[in-house]
Amino acid sequence: MTSLKIKALTFDVFGTVVDWRSSIIREGNQLNREKGLNIDWAEFADAWRGMYQPALSRVRNGDRPWANLDHLHRESLETLTHQFGLDLLDQTELDRLNRVWHRLQPWPDTVEGLLRLKRKFILATLSNGNVALMVNMARHAGLPWDVILGAEPARCYKPLPQAYLVTAQLLGLAPTECMMVAAHNNDLEAARDCGFSTAFVHRTTEYGPGQTRDLAPTHEWHAVADDLIDLAAQLGC
Amino acid sequence: MTSLKIKALTFDVFGTVVDWRSSIIREGNQLNREKGLNIDWAEFADAWRGMYQPALSRVRNGDRPWANLDHLHRESLETLTHQFGLDLLDQTELDRLNRVWHRLQPWPDTVEGLLRLKRKFILATLSNGNVALMVNMARHAGLPWDVILGAEPARCYKPLPQAYLVTAQLLGLAPTECMMVAAHNNDLEAARDCGFSTAFVHRTTEYGPGQTRDLAPTHEWHAVADDLIDLAAQLGC
Repeated sequence: MTSLKIKALTFDVFGTVVDWRSSIIREGNQLNREKGLNIDWAEFADAWRGMYQPALSRVRNGDRPWANLDHLHRESLETLTHQFGLDLLDQTELDRLNRVWHRLQPWPDTVEGLLRLKRKFILATLSNGNVALMVNMARHAGLPWDVILGAEPARCYKPLPQAYLVTAQLLGLAPTECMMVAAHNNDLEAARDCGFSTAFVHRTTEYGPGQTRDLAPTHEWHAVADDLIDLAAQLGC
Repeated sequence: MTSLKIKALTFDVFGTVVDWRSSIIREGNQLNREKGLNIDWAEFADAWRGMYQPALSRVRNGDRPWANLDHLHRESLETLTHQFGLDLLDQTELDRLNRVWHRLQPWPDTVEGLLRLKRKFILATLSNGNVALMVNMARHAGLPWDVILGAEPARCYKPLPQAYLVTAQLLGLAPTECMMVAAHNNDLEAARDCGFSTAFVHRTTEYGPGQTRDLAPTHEWHAVADDLIDLAAQLGC
């Protein structure tokens, strides 16, 4: 695998860089203790994340005008409050819970891997998360991004091509000078179709112990890595 | 001066954070030696920068469609090549010269000042420079931005209000939670009119030894600092 022409690595974030599911469960269990609740936060996390792609689809399809991910997360949260017994939280508490996505924890290899990769490559987010979410997460988790790009600056959600193409354009690079790094095969397919190089990262517990999707690469991606430290080693960082 | 409600500092970059004039002169003198030229690079830097506001104005006024700063710099450079005896440079060499803006040097206090300010505040660029220029400059000069915002993501050049308002919006903040940091009174006036707090930084040699503009604050800005280390001290960082 040649990496000579690659100048920037563009990262999927939820699942690839941070462990959203465990982070939500951890904060939720803390909320259980503080409020005397008895919510199954694993079930809640899966339900909340389950509303993610349908919400994005409505924007992608033009069924509704642009709305950023904080906004979509908040709508999904409102839908789930009654079902999960969160009615006793007031609006300020729901706002705080909604911003758990700003406080997600990195995988154990993430920070070291990114710091090594940053020596040689521009590191850009190419996430469906909005800019404020990504900035707050980076400060919380110590993620050393050079630049926050992706859906909100492009006003387009992955996997639509504009999300990738506008990101490369804002970097001043050709798509062939960018490598998409993701734990999700469909994200890499879309990036490849735009001309990006591709790196698959194994995150086999993103969806918990019973994960069935994205357990292995489905195509011959340019790189396949166990984690971000392994990717750094493979790319000579 | 209260800074309790301020969550992000938004920075003018050219002149406030980096010393564009000395950087161009330094690289230009190197080019003189390499190519056997005898160009007065101080005069060239002033002429090039002198074309900056007129070029931005044509975009601001709607006299031409959006064009980013790399593009505008390149057009101005083409205009100056004959006058300054740069005709012997080929297109690749002109491209390289145009990207001197990606390689500007920070003022001596900049990196330490930003690192201190970053402990307490989100640090965002709010420059008319394009994203790629800002990213490359940050890597070159060691500028620890949390996020690159400003004219290109807002598709609007300062001092038009949208440049400031879209920046605050992308940060997920009210304008009153943002403080504009600049060495230029007109930039601070425009930010203040959008609801930002304001910090003036003295850069009395930005335009060389004979500088006549922005030698002192023209209004009662929320902070007035000798440099970015002084600003960090004033803001309790």
